[in-house]
Amino acid sequence: MVCTLTTDFGTRDWYVGALKGTLLRLAPHAVLIDLAHDLAPGDVASAGMVLAGAAFAFPPGTVHLAVVDPGVGSARRMLAARAAEQTFVAPDNGLLTAFLDAAAIVHSVERPDLYLESPGDTFHGRDRFAPIAAAVLGGCALESLGPRVHDPVRLTGAKPARDAASGTITGHVVHVDRYGNLVTDVPFSWVRGRLVSARAGRLEARRLATHYAELPAGVLGVLAGSLGTLEIALRDGSAADATGAGRGDAITIEIAAS
Amino acid sequence: MVCTLTTDFGTRDWYVGALKGTLLRLAPHAVLIDLAHDLAPGDVASAGMVLAGAAFAFPPGTVHLAVVDPGVGSARRMLAARAAEQTFVAPDNGLLTAFLDAAAIVHSVERPDLYLESPGDTFHGRDRFAPIAAAVLGGCALESLGPRVHDPVRLTGAKPARDAASGTITGHVVHVDRYGNLVTDVPFSWVRGRLVSARAGRLEARRLATHYAELPAGVLGVLAGSLGTLEIALRDGSAADATGAGRGDAITIEIAAS
Amino acid sequence: MVCTLTTDFGTRDWYVGALKGTLLRLAPHAVLIDLAHDLAPGDVASAGMVLAGAAFAFPPGTVHLAVVDPGVGSARRMLAARAAEQTFVAPDNGLLTAFLDAAAIVHSVERPDLYLESPGDTFHGRDRFAPIAAAVLGGCALESLGPRVHDPVRLTGAKPARDAASGTITGHVVHVDRYGNLVTDVPFSWVRGRLVSARAGRLEARRLATHYAELPAGVLGVLAGSLGTLEIALRDGSAADATGAGRGDAITIEIAAS
Repeated sequence: MVCTLTTDFGTRDWYVGALKGTLLRLAPHAVLIDLAHDLAPGDVASAGMVLAGAAFAFPPGTVHLAVVDPGVGSARRMLAARAAEQTFVAPDNGLLTAFLDAAAIVHSVERPDLYLESPGDTFHGRDRFAPIAAAVLGGCALESLGPRVHDPVRLTGAKPARDAASGTITGHVVHVDRYGNLVTDVPFSWVRGRLVSARAGRLEARRLATHYAELPAGVLGVLAGSLGTLEIALRDGSAADATGAGRGDAITIEIAAS
Repeated sequence: MVCTLTTDFGTRDWYVGALKGTLLRLAPHAVLIDLAHDLAPGDVASAGMVLAGAAFAFPPGTVHLAVVDPGVGSARRMLAARAAEQTFVAPDNGLLTAFLDAAAIVHSVERPDLYLESPGDTFHGRDRFAPIAAAVLGGCALESLGPRVHDPVRLTGAKPARDAASGTITGHVVHVDRYGNLVTDVPFSWVRGRLVSARAGRLEARRLATHYAELPAGVLGVLAGSLGTLEIALRDGSAADATGAGRGDAITIEIAAS
Repeated sequence: MVCTLTTDFGTRDWYVGALKGTLLRLAPHAVLIDLAHDLAPGDVASAGMVLAGAAFAFPPGTVHLAVVDPGVGSARRMLAARAAEQTFVAPDNGLLTAFLDAAAIVHSVERPDLYLESPGDTFHGRDRFAPIAAAVLGGCALESLGPRVHDPVRLTGAKPARDAASGTITGHVVHVDRYGNLVTDVPFSWVRGRLVSARAGRLEARRLATHYAELPAGVLGVLAGSLGTLEIALRDGSAADATGAGRGDAITIEIAAS
């Protein structure tokens, strides 16, 4: 049984180890798979992107444990959610937004009997989330973990929009990856074959490319990114640095009439 | 059989891979679990903290291989130690200090027949420690690895102290984690419910909190950390940066009479 | 069945997770082993070094998947190669140079039926390389993946040379590791016991050591590195920073007559 791990615990402290040890002690047959641990401290949105981009690649039945939890110890709920044959365990802080569609089954975990005795309320990753994930890995039904909830916290943001008359699309940078690519929320299908220009920050891209190496060095281009959305990239460089655009910034796209 | 890995090898070179490959070649059924590889080069104390904070979360029988070994190739001994049903393999440089209590059984490994042929004495992680760990994973008794030793190297440091008359506690920062939290050696039970103030570097904390989000932004607080010791944290910031305190620095705590 | 992973995907995005998920979905029994993910973006040479230093430590039958692929989506081929009882899957960009000796069996993969449907040509790691590796892990013969090729791309570089008359060896820095050690291409056997001096950048080392701790602090030394080649190291510091030498730079060695 595969259990993926996504945290902001870094790779210099004992936090990842304590999480893994607890999981293996309580669910000895779990196969632990690191997704990402170097997220910026408290960066819930990036944790959500990691899961959104990776979760459904995994086999059905996978358990995804994600702990980016600046509200640890507060009244924030702990969620166990099922979506598309996978199970997610995470704090109720918007991390699971991408998975909370109408078909998702979401429970608030209220099972103090599962939690570890703990010196304080600063490490629920080890003391609560790992035991919860272990229970799920052991076959525990979501129904038995706590009441179903219909109001999980969602990260809200402006949606991409298109104006058919003017041929203008407004979208947003949702992630800057390690290459400096600007990943946006604009479905690539909206621009396929019709790009006139895409403005991000101080620069405008006018070149549609199918792959990075097709761009001349130093030229900003527009591609279909790995999530199926429009991506702005700079060959052999960082589009984020070149444009000055970052997460949350608007991008404006002009397309030709279809 | 679980084998954890803690090193300062980083994640850009072949060192972690060579260690893992050797382990899997010699102990094919080992389940390898990364604890931390991004420790500062030669930072034995941090490696010890990673193990101290994570090891006992793992199931009995786990083998913990830790290689932060600035003395590689010198006359420093190589240790295999058993403590609380777990086995530790590491250089004799203080890394295992947290596990060397009276009940620990510690052996100096002297088994050249196990070591790999090697171009030199610069990579005992691959050439000696991995084969030793593989032997332990394969069921080799510690007694057969070499003589028992009673003088393993210990990291020494001042102990926390409390003066009952004045209500003053003197402790030390033992670790700065990636969030900038100051982890100390002061048992949290010494201050629970009685904090007056805790001074670290240039600042004083007067607020006792059960969790980080309880602190107002920018306020320094005192909490029970994940190891059961007192921790000084800054909401949404780095207590280390704000106070100027770092590993080894003293902290001074005033408590109310009980 | 062990499958190692070497990429420049970093540890903050969803790329590593999407690769792992796809592998586990298509090859459920694969044991995934991270070698390195923090390589500099597009640094094909470092990926090759990671494999060169780690691959043969693994058991026969291991599959090594390496994706540092700045040419993703272009006409560059995708290779599956067998060398010394191990299988390598990687783009045809020189990454596998160390394994392309006369005995290697190299195939160009041409199996669109294996590839995943994809929004674009920007993530062949997930959409093509993972399915190829999964096919190999499932027992697929290299012959069935595509035609044999005899002209894989090789990274070329000057070879180390020695002038017996003058006792001068000219070599090159092939890697700077995280400790700042200068790893060279000069076989250590060329200098063993005969070193007069080794010049790298602005400094000269005259001290031959068997291990790092043998060097006095601040003294530059020459050792046998973990690959069997000459290495230049600075005790408790970075030889790269001290000498100013980096990858590709020449080093000049004087040896005594044998």
